[in-house]
Amino acid sequence: MDPLDAAMKTCGADAFVHYATGEDADMRYLTRFVMHDSFVFFKRHRQRGTIIVPQMEAERASRESVTAVMTRTQAGLPDILKKEKDPWKAIARMIARQAGKKVLVSPAFPAVLLRALEEHVQVIVDAGTVEKVRAKKSPDEIRLMQDVQKKTERAMALGISLIRHATVKKGVLYHEGTPLTSERMRVAMHKQLMDDGCRAVETIISCGEDTAFPHIIGSGPLKPHEPIVIDMFPRDEASGYYADMTRTVSKGKPGARIVEMYEAVREAQLVGIAQIKAGVSGADPYTAVVDYFRDRGYESDTRGFIHNLGHGVGLQVHELPTIGPSGVALEAGAVVTVEPGLYYPGIGGIRLEDMGAVRARKFANFTRFEETLVV
Amino acid sequence: MDPLDAAMKTCGADAFVHYATGEDADMRYLTRFVMHDSFVFFKRHRQRGTIIVPQMEAERASRESVTAVMTRTQAGLPDILKKEKDPWKAIARMIARQAGKKVLVSPAFPAVLLRALEEHVQVIVDAGTVEKVRAKKSPDEIRLMQDVQKKTERAMALGISLIRHATVKKGVLYHEGTPLTSERMRVAMHKQLMDDGCRAVETIISCGEDTAFPHIIGSGPLKPHEPIVIDMFPRDEASGYYADMTRTVSKGKPGARIVEMYEAVREAQLVGIAQIKAGVSGADPYTAVVDYFRDRGYESDTRGFIHNLGHGVGLQVHELPTIGPSGVALEAGAVVTVEPGLYYPGIGGIRLEDMGAVRARKFANFTRFEETLVV
Repeated sequence: MDPLDAAMKTCGADAFVHYATGEDADMRYLTRFVMHDSFVFFKRHRQRGTIIVPQMEAERASRESVTAVMTRTQAGLPDILKKEKDPWKAIARMIARQAGKKVLVSPAFPAVLLRALEEHVQVIVDAGTVEKVRAKKSPDEIRLMQDVQKKTERAMALGISLIRHATVKKGVLYHEGTPLTSERMRVAMHKQLMDDGCRAVETIISCGEDTAFPHIIGSGPLKPHEPIVIDMFPRDEASGYYADMTRTVSKGKPGARIVEMYEAVREAQLVGIAQIKAGVSGADPYTAVVDYFRDRGYESDTRGFIHNLGHGVGLQVHELPTIGPSGVALEAGAVVTVEPGLYYPGIGGIRLEDMGAVRARKFANFTRFEETLVV
Repeated sequence: MDPLDAAMKTCGADAFVHYATGEDADMRYLTRFVMHDSFVFFKRHRQRGTIIVPQMEAERASRESVTAVMTRTQAGLPDILKKEKDPWKAIARMIARQAGKKVLVSPAFPAVLLRALEEHVQVIVDAGTVEKVRAKKSPDEIRLMQDVQKKTERAMALGISLIRHATVKKGVLYHEGTPLTSERMRVAMHKQLMDDGCRAVETIISCGEDTAFPHIIGSGPLKPHEPIVIDMFPRDEASGYYADMTRTVSKGKPGARIVEMYEAVREAQLVGIAQIKAGVSGADPYTAVVDYFRDRGYESDTRGFIHNLGHGVGLQVHELPTIGPSGVALEAGAVVTVEPGLYYPGIGGIRLEDMGAVRARKFANFTRFEETLVV
């Protein structure tokens, strides 16, 4: 049975309803339709579902959405608005007309609309059925994600080649006569991704002591003999699927502690990958990496390895499943990252991140890109 | 009094709570902090507010957020998770510890978290206080938006110059020997925006009959003697503010109906702009344009002028106020678009869109870009 139908049956709901923009991953998954303003999706048993959109979006929606399409006028909104001036109450009334007496709503359903809908129907909040379904990718989704990964690696190669071919003057990297900054390298990589039909935002290109803080995006001139963390998560514009990848490099040999950390992280990634297969708890690869780091003298607390080992990727850059302490049994078909890191303020940080699919007996790595510290 | 404090006082709440990613406009407005995963913002009376973030984001948050910063550990989450395995229930318990006995939550607060929070505290749903505050821009916000508008016009100039300098072969525009497609023009414009620190997505570059559907993004080779609608809404990466702008051009003279429609839309824009000042209902400029179009023989129904006249712009590309039938009194400081359009399937569409601020006595247009149909 369709998992949403099963969830509806369990609680006796007549319909499932979601309300979000097309940027919302659940909405995109259910409809494959992208609209910037929020719209209604509803589905009764054994139906693909219906979206309710403004007249001006109806033509495009009927071309692009995998659902049935209804205009707001067809759903009775103009009539409702004659009596009901509050837009949330009007939308709630419109939903109530379509959805029966007992409605299952999405976890992200807006509180204001929930309260308005409760005036008309019994409302039950779903615990995350669509998010769970999304975690397990179809062969088509896997192909789309492998394709984004390839394009991501092309951009990574471009970025690292800028570092490799840079010259060094007064402790700063130069490219074609001007300092090679994080910002400049980011723009060069993002432009190439754009040519490949992908959009990247906030690619991390951090250098030196900034690398000790995993989510500092980085700015200013890059420096030799220092770790440079490059963490990118481009999205294919057409499909909406993400890839996620990190490499750490240094222009010229960095300090001994950085070299040691790099080797430990590289080994830790193999330790984590070796643990991943269907049925294993997402906590196990994480614990294996924590144990490995401890044996090498690195803590996993507020310093050292300070984040999860990995996360699902799909229509969101962070989605289920979790490869960390709260992880549960991994399903075949999940696409996850494996990204150990070590972070020491005052010294620096190292992170290496691959992405691949959980299979019955192994982790099928999509990432082909080499891991080399010194470039 | 701070509008959120006033909203809390009205309903007797001890605190206001929001839960969203930093991409959420209300969250960005309240914190100026961008994080890809959702996090908690809470605020008691006469406080700026506090965000609760993972340990790994704490350093960056304390640099970037305008609020106080607390880690999840400081907020007691690890302790709570020892007894409470459901992550939503655990977050609800963490919020309840911080927020008092009666809590006002944001309209977009997720339903699943609302239901979990209701187990601990009395929850009231706010009707949109932050959204209303956001509508009225400060002088700093106005400057940021004028700056995005300028960069948007540079990209528009680049796009139109590609059309202007194109050659025509067998009914298709050519640039440097290959067909000038929507996709190619879009990438060229987006790259220039990237150099200017802006991000644009889904810029509409539609041509010919596609222009009759206002939100079809456009694809394939551009053609001469046909309307080309260019609608872009870039966002400044650093500030998060949007601009929004549309021009319609034709390479060589288009058919007489298109020329007539263009002149009507251009005049309609002036009619709309002339109506806009503080205190006027957002419905009035819309009605004036509908009346003007009717006098010229164009309907405002399922064909003709089929959308609102304009909308607020800020940290969202569509926000309050509305310049349309449901509009209410405009406030000085609101930044809005004025974008009449005419759409006739089988013939084509025209849209012209400027953006500017509502002032005491007028509409202060940020847009300087010329309106010329034939290029």
